[in-house]
Amino acid sequence: MAENLTTVVSSETKEVLISRDRPCVIIGERINPTGRKKLATALQAGNFDIVRQDAVAQVEAGANILDVNVGVPGADEPALLVQAIHAVRQVTDVPLCIDTADPQALEAGLKVYDGKALINSVNGEEARLKSVLPLVKEYGAAVIGLCMDDEGIPTTAEGRLAVARKIIERAGKLGISPEDVVIDPLALTLGADHRAGRIALDAIEMIVAEFGVNITMGASNISFGMPDRQAINAAFIAMAIHAGLTCPIVNPLHEEVATAILAADLAMGRDEWGARWIKAYRQRLRD
Amino acid sequence: MAENLTTVVSSETKEVLISRDRPCVIIGERINPTGRKKLATALQAGNFDIVRQDAVAQVEAGANILDVNVGVPGADEPALLVQAIHAVRQVTDVPLCIDTADPQALEAGLKVYDGKALINSVNGEEARLKSVLPLVKEYGAAVIGLCMDDEGIPTTAEGRLAVARKIIERAGKLGISPEDVVIDPLALTLGADHRAGRIALDAIEMIVAEFGVNITMGASNISFGMPDRQAINAAFIAMAIHAGLTCPIVNPLHEEVATAILAADLAMGRDEWGARWIKAYRQRLRD
Repeated sequence: MAENLTTVVSSETKEVLISRDRPCVIIGERINPTGRKKLATALQAGNFDIVRQDAVAQVEAGANILDVNVGVPGADEPALLVQAIHAVRQVTDVPLCIDTADPQALEAGLKVYDGKALINSVNGEEARLKSVLPLVKEYGAAVIGLCMDDEGIPTTAEGRLAVARKIIERAGKLGISPEDVVIDPLALTLGADHRAGRIALDAIEMIVAEFGVNITMGASNISFGMPDRQAINAAFIAMAIHAGLTCPIVNPLHEEVATAILAADLAMGRDEWGARWIKAYRQRLRD
Repeated sequence: MAENLTTVVSSETKEVLISRDRPCVIIGERINPTGRKKLATALQAGNFDIVRQDAVAQVEAGANILDVNVGVPGADEPALLVQAIHAVRQVTDVPLCIDTADPQALEAGLKVYDGKALINSVNGEEARLKSVLPLVKEYGAAVIGLCMDDEGIPTTAEGRLAVARKIIERAGKLGISPEDVVIDPLALTLGADHRAGRIALDAIEMIVAEFGVNITMGASNISFGMPDRQAINAAFIAMAIHAGLTCPIVNPLHEEVATAILAADLAMGRDEWGARWIKAYRQRLRD
């Protein structure tokens, strides 16, 4: 078993430590125009009101880091990403996760970001490794590595582990240490393959055992097309936390999932006196 | 890693297989007068209406095995247990878990039980090992072994593993094979020790790795004294299933916990096409 590593990300004023010895770190996923037409339209018009609202609401609901994605068709993404980062910074001081597929937008974002950012994401594709990892190194950031490569997403846990290994090794060759690589094993849809959850859970355990790195993952794809999705997502995320997930990327406004994360921390012995659980319960009663 | 074992329990007409390759087996815990004054009073009066109602309701809610406990003060427990077994048998044919601390009641129950019963329980105490294990062997039953001994309940996962080892070894000396020993690691109250959940989860993983035996556990003690208990129980049981729990002892009428068990099976890849999940969802809609 590899030693558990600690990933540090920060804003100008706030440091967030991610490790299996601490409660989960929640990466708020809401600032993303995918499937959100209103936000997409606002971003295309250069309006950041929704971005600011989403930032505030997610932090109030428990997000420790905010993902910022402004990928909309026809926009100048580097400029838009810089503006979005400034907009979020006007209303909250939590560290950010800069989420873009465009290396120029990524560099533009990193240039204006004050602190140690988390980058979303690199993967095992040669082109991505070559474009993203040098920026991770140059800007002293941390990076999320998705378990997919030029062959696609491996259909086995062993295959995902192999991609994680490739990313961690390639990062290492550039002097990026494993604590600055956060792996996302990728949770696919149970409706398409009933073993999708198991493959992700097994991949987490294998990656943690071999490298001790921190693990991020979304929990909503898994239930796509199933009834009572929130209940599936809640159970799955609690199980993933038991497997080794440390910084889920979720919408903290989804109460069932946010509650499951707190309950999982409690069950993992990471919530002394149940103080965080009781505090969150009281806040839900007030809301 | 030990090979995963399969435990078989049966009634005259039904066989239930417990293993980590199959969906969880639910042991319905409801027929138990502890903390249920109405049931206790009815049992003392020799009235088994509630017992029959509880049996039917639990099986309809998904119980695969029914625990039968009639321990009330001042009663002739052997006679009462035999009557309760007959009462349950009038309304359902699922296998039973004969639950008593009284060796005479246990033997009386085993004598009238048709099939291979599960016995609840032995533990690591010398007196219990000596009184219960010979009955397990004589009647060809399976037995639940609680991780406590003459020193009490160990406060570490390693301590619980040691008691499990003792029970499995002592059973082996009488010719009872490990597949007929189901271990309960005991989940204590988080409110008294915030590591209680973690100790139980770690104990499950260790016991499964060393022996491959099946694991039972209740999930309600853990949240005693905390707000929003059902959410804690649901997350904890999903995590325990990921750790290796195969036959939780729960009240299947508690919807959040029953749903979490189904969701955990789905996430573990034990519910092909999500057929059980979808069926249970439709049933909830109808109810």
